[in-house]
Amino acid sequence: MTEPVPSTAAMLAIGDEILSGRTKDRNIGHFAEVMTLAGIDLAEVRIVPDDAARIVEALNALRARYDIVVTSGGIGPTHDDITADAVGAAFGLPVGEHEEAVERLRSYYEGRDLPFTDARRRMTRTPQGASLIDNPVSTAPGFSIGNVHVMAGVPHVFQAMLENLVKSLPHGIPIESRAVACPLGEGDIGGPLAEIARARDGVSIGSYPRFAEGRYTTEIIIRSRDRAKLDEAEQAVRAMIDALS
Amino acid sequence: MTEPVPSTAAMLAIGDEILSGRTKDRNIGHFAEVMTLAGIDLAEVRIVPDDAARIVEALNALRARYDIVVTSGGIGPTHDDITADAVGAAFGLPVGEHEEAVERLRSYYEGRDLPFTDARRRMTRTPQGASLIDNPVSTAPGFSIGNVHVMAGVPHVFQAMLENLVKSLPHGIPIESRAVACPLGEGDIGGPLAEIARARDGVSIGSYPRFAEGRYTTEIIIRSRDRAKLDEAEQAVRAMIDALS
Repeated sequence: MTEPVPSTAAMLAIGDEILSGRTKDRNIGHFAEVMTLAGIDLAEVRIVPDDAARIVEALNALRARYDIVVTSGGIGPTHDDITADAVGAAFGLPVGEHEEAVERLRSYYEGRDLPFTDARRRMTRTPQGASLIDNPVSTAPGFSIGNVHVMAGVPHVFQAMLENLVKSLPHGIPIESRAVACPLGEGDIGGPLAEIARARDGVSIGSYPRFAEGRYTTEIIIRSRDRAKLDEAEQAVRAMIDALS
Repeated sequence: MTEPVPSTAAMLAIGDEILSGRTKDRNIGHFAEVMTLAGIDLAEVRIVPDDAARIVEALNALRARYDIVVTSGGIGPTHDDITADAVGAAFGLPVGEHEEAVERLRSYYEGRDLPFTDARRRMTRTPQGASLIDNPVSTAPGFSIGNVHVMAGVPHVFQAMLENLVKSLPHGIPIESRAVACPLGEGDIGGPLAEIARARDGVSIGSYPRFAEGRYTTEIIIRSRDRAKLDEAEQAVRAMIDALS
């Protein structure tokens, strides 16, 4: 059976506040869940500071390697929001006001009797040729250029933008997973579990220690895009546990 | 005034389960906080899967660039725990059982009447020449080799190992920060705030939107290693807010 090659994705989270520990990132885990549901393999994540050279370098490494790259953070109206310029620099494209973005924001602020300041106009800047990603929360859009999708860092805005973006991405066959609770510790099952994993292509088996009431148990996670292989591997794992218990 | 150059740190979180979204990482944010308190600049974070080639590549990139690299994950007793071997490969060093680690684990399991299985022995493997990082929670140690410090992924073990590790790291001058609550939105203050930031070396100013009760406000964070500069910048920010409100 030949399966379609799944798309790969990477995420670049941008922001000094995450690296200082002041803000705890909440976008990476959400993005990972959404990619898994869409059948896209999230293959790498990087976090870099608000520094143009570092953003450009990471973005160029990731966009060359993966099918899809999503960024979070740095697209607001203040001086520390430099993502649009950095993305333009990475692609070697000029960055300017996106006409449609200007119209959306002008109408948004006029409707609220708020001045459309120069700072707010900064949020309309994209590399030339970018298409917009809708922001149903606060209007200021994200944008896509090539295989790079630039989104806000504020979690509820990131999530809303991602919901719009993901509809347009080519979905793969979702990986299904089974969780098997094992009453033994990892050290008791490590050997036989390795044999089960080694004998099976197209199935990945992970084991995760749990500690409660003074003893270790294990959660075994079996993952595959092929349900028949998943069923067979789950049976093998359950038989192993029965034999060792 | 010449200041000592602060140390830089990077973190490499290893694990399929984080990239699938099944496990939400809780180590990055904690590590970031501890580094900030120690006056060490966390400059980059990467997350890669349980794949030896990917771990080696990321580790070699990070250890060449930063003073300190910390890894989390992949040092347990099962087949998917490949971090020790990958670190050995990155350094071009043979990997084998660390004598002191074997003694610690043998005594730990004997004391609990548990068999010291081959799987458990896997947790004593380090690159040649590594020194151990104590694990007061469950004994199986982390290790340091060169500027790379390899620690567990389970958060309470990671935290305990980090507490031991950080005592041995050269600390810098901690960055202090001030938070100023601003009743205006980022779009209202972006211009003047940029001027304040541009005029001040050794001070970084970040602004973070808050949305509550139907309107945007801003939290402005001023950071510096120099308290006098911090005081002066805070006054300038407060004067700006008074002038605009």
